[in-house]
Amino acid sequence: MLKAKTTRSGERKHNQSRPVKMETGVNLWAEGSVLIETGSTRVICTASVEDKLPPFLRNSGRGWVTGEYSMLPRSTDVRTPREAARGKQGGRTMEIQRLIGRSLRSVVKMEDLGERTIVIDCDVIQADGGTRTASVTGGFVALCLALHRLREEGKLDEIPLKDYLAAVSVGIVGGKAMLDLDFREDSNADTDMNVVMTGSGKYVEVQGTAEENPFGKKELEELLSLAAKGIKELVREQKKVLPETFSIKA
Amino acid sequence: MLKAKTTRSGERKHNQSRPVKMETGVNLWAEGSVLIETGSTRVICTASVEDKLPPFLRNSGRGWVTGEYSMLPRSTDVRTPREAARGKQGGRTMEIQRLIGRSLRSVVKMEDLGERTIVIDCDVIQADGGTRTASVTGGFVALCLALHRLREEGKLDEIPLKDYLAAVSVGIVGGKAMLDLDFREDSNADTDMNVVMTGSGKYVEVQGTAEENPFGKKELEELLSLAAKGIKELVREQKKVLPETFSIKA
Amino acid sequence: MLKAKTTRSGERKHNQSRPVKMETGVNLWAEGSVLIETGSTRVICTASVEDKLPPFLRNSGRGWVTGEYSMLPRSTDVRTPREAARGKQGGRTMEIQRLIGRSLRSVVKMEDLGERTIVIDCDVIQADGGTRTASVTGGFVALCLALHRLREEGKLDEIPLKDYLAAVSVGIVGGKAMLDLDFREDSNADTDMNVVMTGSGKYVEVQGTAEENPFGKKELEELLSLAAKGIKELVREQKKVLPETFSIKA
Amino acid sequence: MLKAKTTRSGERKHNQSRPVKMETGVNLWAEGSVLIETGSTRVICTASVEDKLPPFLRNSGRGWVTGEYSMLPRSTDVRTPREAARGKQGGRTMEIQRLIGRSLRSVVKMEDLGERTIVIDCDVIQADGGTRTASVTGGFVALCLALHRLREEGKLDEIPLKDYLAAVSVGIVGGKAMLDLDFREDSNADTDMNVVMTGSGKYVEVQGTAEENPFGKKELEELLSLAAKGIKELVREQKKVLPETFSIKA
Amino acid sequence: MLKAKTTRSGERKHNQSRPVKMETGVNLWAEGSVLIETGSTRVICTASVEDKLPPFLRNSGRGWVTGEYSMLPRSTDVRTPREAARGKQGGRTMEIQRLIGRSLRSVVKMEDLGERTIVIDCDVIQADGGTRTASVTGGFVALCLALHRLREEGKLDEIPLKDYLAAVSVGIVGGKAMLDLDFREDSNADTDMNVVMTGSGKYVEVQGTAEENPFGKKELEELLSLAAKGIKELVREQKKVLPETFSIKA
Amino acid sequence: MLKAKTTRSGERKHNQSRPVKMETGVNLWAEGSVLIETGSTRVICTASVEDKLPPFLRNSGRGWVTGEYSMLPRSTDVRTPREAARGKQGGRTMEIQRLIGRSLRSVVKMEDLGERTIVIDCDVIQADGGTRTASVTGGFVALCLALHRLREEGKLDEIPLKDYLAAVSVGIVGGKAMLDLDFREDSNADTDMNVVMTGSGKYVEVQGTAEENPFGKKELEELLSLAAKGIKELVREQKKVLPETFSIKA
Repeated sequence: MLKAKTTRSGERKHNQSRPVKMETGVNLWAEGSVLIETGSTRVICTASVEDKLPPFLRNSGRGWVTGEYSMLPRSTDVRTPREAARGKQGGRTMEIQRLIGRSLRSVVKMEDLGERTIVIDCDVIQADGGTRTASVTGGFVALCLALHRLREEGKLDEIPLKDYLAAVSVGIVGGKAMLDLDFREDSNADTDMNVVMTGSGKYVEVQGTAEENPFGKKELEELLSLAAKGIKELVREQKKVLPETFSIKA
Repeated sequence: MLKAKTTRSGERKHNQSRPVKMETGVNLWAEGSVLIETGSTRVICTASVEDKLPPFLRNSGRGWVTGEYSMLPRSTDVRTPREAARGKQGGRTMEIQRLIGRSLRSVVKMEDLGERTIVIDCDVIQADGGTRTASVTGGFVALCLALHRLREEGKLDEIPLKDYLAAVSVGIVGGKAMLDLDFREDSNADTDMNVVMTGSGKYVEVQGTAEENPFGKKELEELLSLAAKGIKELVREQKKVLPETFSIKA
Repeated sequence: MLKAKTTRSGERKHNQSRPVKMETGVNLWAEGSVLIETGSTRVICTASVEDKLPPFLRNSGRGWVTGEYSMLPRSTDVRTPREAARGKQGGRTMEIQRLIGRSLRSVVKMEDLGERTIVIDCDVIQADGGTRTASVTGGFVALCLALHRLREEGKLDEIPLKDYLAAVSVGIVGGKAMLDLDFREDSNADTDMNVVMTGSGKYVEVQGTAEENPFGKKELEELLSLAAKGIKELVREQKKVLPETFSIKA
Repeated sequence: MLKAKTTRSGERKHNQSRPVKMETGVNLWAEGSVLIETGSTRVICTASVEDKLPPFLRNSGRGWVTGEYSMLPRSTDVRTPREAARGKQGGRTMEIQRLIGRSLRSVVKMEDLGERTIVIDCDVIQADGGTRTASVTGGFVALCLALHRLREEGKLDEIPLKDYLAAVSVGIVGGKAMLDLDFREDSNADTDMNVVMTGSGKYVEVQGTAEENPFGKKELEELLSLAAKGIKELVREQKKVLPETFSIKA
Repeated sequence: MLKAKTTRSGERKHNQSRPVKMETGVNLWAEGSVLIETGSTRVICTASVEDKLPPFLRNSGRGWVTGEYSMLPRSTDVRTPREAARGKQGGRTMEIQRLIGRSLRSVVKMEDLGERTIVIDCDVIQADGGTRTASVTGGFVALCLALHRLREEGKLDEIPLKDYLAAVSVGIVGGKAMLDLDFREDSNADTDMNVVMTGSGKYVEVQGTAEENPFGKKELEELLSLAAKGIKELVREQKKVLPETFSIKA
Repeated sequence: MLKAKTTRSGERKHNQSRPVKMETGVNLWAEGSVLIETGSTRVICTASVEDKLPPFLRNSGRGWVTGEYSMLPRSTDVRTPREAARGKQGGRTMEIQRLIGRSLRSVVKMEDLGERTIVIDCDVIQADGGTRTASVTGGFVALCLALHRLREEGKLDEIPLKDYLAAVSVGIVGGKAMLDLDFREDSNADTDMNVVMTGSGKYVEVQGTAEENPFGKKELEELLSLAAKGIKELVREQKKVLPETFSIKA
């Protein structure tokens, strides 16, 4: 196992995110798509619009948004066997895709989406920590692109979103609160927290876990403050890659 | 669906937990067992000591603690089909049992446990909100009882625990922060948070989710403060049902 | 393994059942529920009324009754892995739940039940032999309670039952026919038989198995005679816990 | 559905079995094999000798015998989907293969079999009632042939069997006890019973089920008496097709 | 493992098929059935007519033909575990049943079949090489018989087939191209090829695989030429066992 | 559905492949990796070296090469549900990954590879026809890179390959033989053929399927000749992206 280092790789400061890059339109077929890279982590997020609804919403006049998540077998340091070959999705995958779907739904006006489902697929091409938060951040962009396209095609009057949305991981490594952990830092973290926030700075998900050492109130506040900074920057990046004519009315 | 009510059932105040009851020794076979009731929620928690380890820990000299969770089909208002009949455990089950195992492990000194696994089974007999937090609180008691027994039998020198541990749910219902939500309150909550803390008041897990409305910093603080109060009370109850000769050296 | 003893535990005679206890109304949600205890064996039986039918009965004007069975992992001496985690129900579980459903159906007037399904869930909380027969005996009580409630609510005119129903295990242990085997006796039995009978003393199921030594006609008769005695007593106990206004017209 | 007829097909009397035919050596590879036909029911039974044991018997010095059962999709009137395609074996299949294995084991001297497993595969080529009893009867012959071969090869000193074994179904159709039900009779039976007996007339399995009408003691005795007659005849047929040099020392 | 021999068993020449035998009407229930034997390979093929269609063809006015394939556990030299017990069909099975269905569909006029599905089940009773090609050859006969019966019953005006169809395996063993490999030859083949052709000599499937040594154009041509010869003979045999009044109008 | 067009998209001639692009080193973790693009089809191929062997090869002194294949859900025009979520890999996936593994193994000197397994993962990021052949062509490059690295690290003395390897699809569309079908062409093909060949022009796999119209010898020859041309070009491209110091000694 890698040793804990409090000095970050690449001369990065404790409150500094890794460089983020979002390339849209990476998929020929999907209604919305983006390749998000944060450091060495790379996730392809696609949004698929389907004219059907899960059973519990049929004839409700409302829409639905759901997320799916998977890692390519060799996206990780050591090859991970395929879940399809093992015959079931693991607990971690389920937990993550539930988080993605729930987070995205929190900013969607379902009653304005129409009777359709938007499926956000987040496929990790290369993993180096923070794949679930990159999936939320990239997945939101894919969702925006699909909604934009529906509006361009006249299928929606307005973009049915309440706010922007992004996510970041924070953690305590070697006793120090840090923003946007990479794999090596994450493996050595005492505490690991994933935070999903809206563009206006409200919390959507706060998931903090003490792997080794329970943490106090002060550390919690430091972590949340770092997360807020990181998410603000991510939302700024999201806006840069969205179409000029795209906007959200709160 | 049930309507939101800001008045709680049974004249309970917003910062008041439901009555909690823990009956130990409810299982003839298990090394530790407890039936925990919080209001109408009832969970049987058993601790099973097994002289084997998961593959990644073999010959490590360390022990392991893991949790499993399930609901009886009619523990819920409407009958839920069995996961065994459907052929797989759902995402919610997986998420919860990962939470239980992770939480319990955070207070165990694995290197002092010896090469054995303790499996904590949490089976919900009747559900009325807060089943996962009751599972952590009751599961910790079952774990203590099993460790106590191992020490009585001379298989352990000390209780290999760092601290007490309990969990509670809090949430914002009708705009108001509330402690220990029951099913009706939970169904109407804007925000739902599960908190796991140690006896000395440190966080082990903080899992907050905005189902409908993202929440701000002030609300987060109110929720965490209610949770701390509730957990303090739960740890007091845990101590009452543990053997007199049981104690944890931090 | 435990050694065979022809002297029974607790000074019980060969033709004497273990004490049986049935507590009704143990579940907040179910239309009928009972906790049945026979010695140390404990099973929670719930009856759930659902306004739907299996495909082969749709629009038939008839109802349906089905049974499900499961053991909590630590209901047994050595912890048994969850079937949900293994991804399928084992042969023993399937065999038992088929027996429960078939037995209960034999005394139900399906054409008078209306187009609804009653699911009897039998969850073994603690096992010490005779869990399948306790499930039938307790499951029948849960069924009666649900039917009683449907009649109270005006959804049924009559209780659509033909007779009472209970079950018991008998076996040959150490050469001697015995009533109501506990786990230790069952493990040492040469022959093991489960018998389901009606209140009027007719057979519904007779399932005898020679584990080690095939048995003769005389032994079969002794076993059936013991079973008849035990079942008569069980039906008497069932009647005690059913509502006063409950009755079955043959 | 077919109507009940108390007159049997083919002028068969109520206490008369269908013609039985056993052809041995039908499989090029198996250590023992037989095609058993009872009326239109046809089952291929093969015995495979494997030099391995299930985990719970390793290094026990004992052997093991197990049974498997399956129906070809179109062995039935209406095509039944393959269990392999559905991804699991159904409850009926599990119940039947447990019966086959248990029955065969009851006459095997496991301590004399050596550390090997004999797998008896019973594959129903065409079904017309009584497939499980034909599987036991034919499976026993396949087992004998495999044991005979092991002895011929010098791998066994004696045939490690305690007795002969066969099975037959009986039932009450139109109020009348009948031997060896075909599919049409079985579909109309009030009571259906499968009986497995040894060559010396002892019971190994008695499995009676009242599908519609619970049955009394007198009917039970009639059924058992018919079964004894049928099994006696089957054992006579088994002996005819076994090698001349084959014999069982009780 | 068996050693390669360039001399074939039973004095068979390199361009000579094993004796083929087809017995029709071997199943009481199926609309068409045949037992095909090529050497020691034996496959039961049944055709089941179902008045339903896969979802993508509903209300299309067209029919469908599909194939399924399975091997009995002891059809092989060493017993193969059941796919139903393992909970899934293996890749080889899937590959073969896709081949069977695709091949048969290539000669069916789906628009003349009516809105029905014909399922061709190919169950290998004994395997000695060439089971997939025997399945195609026998499956085609079963299909013809079912179509013939539908026409006899007035449900079809014409036999909706475009041509005859059969399949054979060829391969290069010990440097020599050979027709209709048995198991021993197949195990030692450098190249193995399965060819499906129509009665008029057109290719439907050509599946050649170099297990050890890639092959050249000349060898490919030799193999295809041998296959053509073998298939011609097989079609001649098929015609012999089909009803006199059966014919295909191209 | 798309209509058949005999004019190809992008002014491509019938014997002209789509532009192919291979970018190596696209994965941080894998021992060998390449992103292959043929037209709009994009597949990430990674080679993972593992120091373990499948059971049947343990202690054989030989190595093993295997392939896995999967499509991202939205790699296709209409979103395809994940196989991991459905709980099993489909027949098409199994067929393709068997083809990939078999093809690659045909050019590997297993006895010189050492006791290790190389897993080639082929994950389709975007599909527009020819994904399985792109997987073979790209998978071979990933394999070469991993072997090259093993030699650089001194773990191999020589590159244990017999020859280069690539694959292409050909087909008959609108009566005309065409090279390298895209999705639209493939959907309209009468015949579809996948060919795998070595650098020296020998066949490894020939898989031709007549979807609608069986094909004659002349068409087969045309298709094989087009395939040979396409594969020659692909091998030329492979050599361009492999390291200068990489070479194969036949």
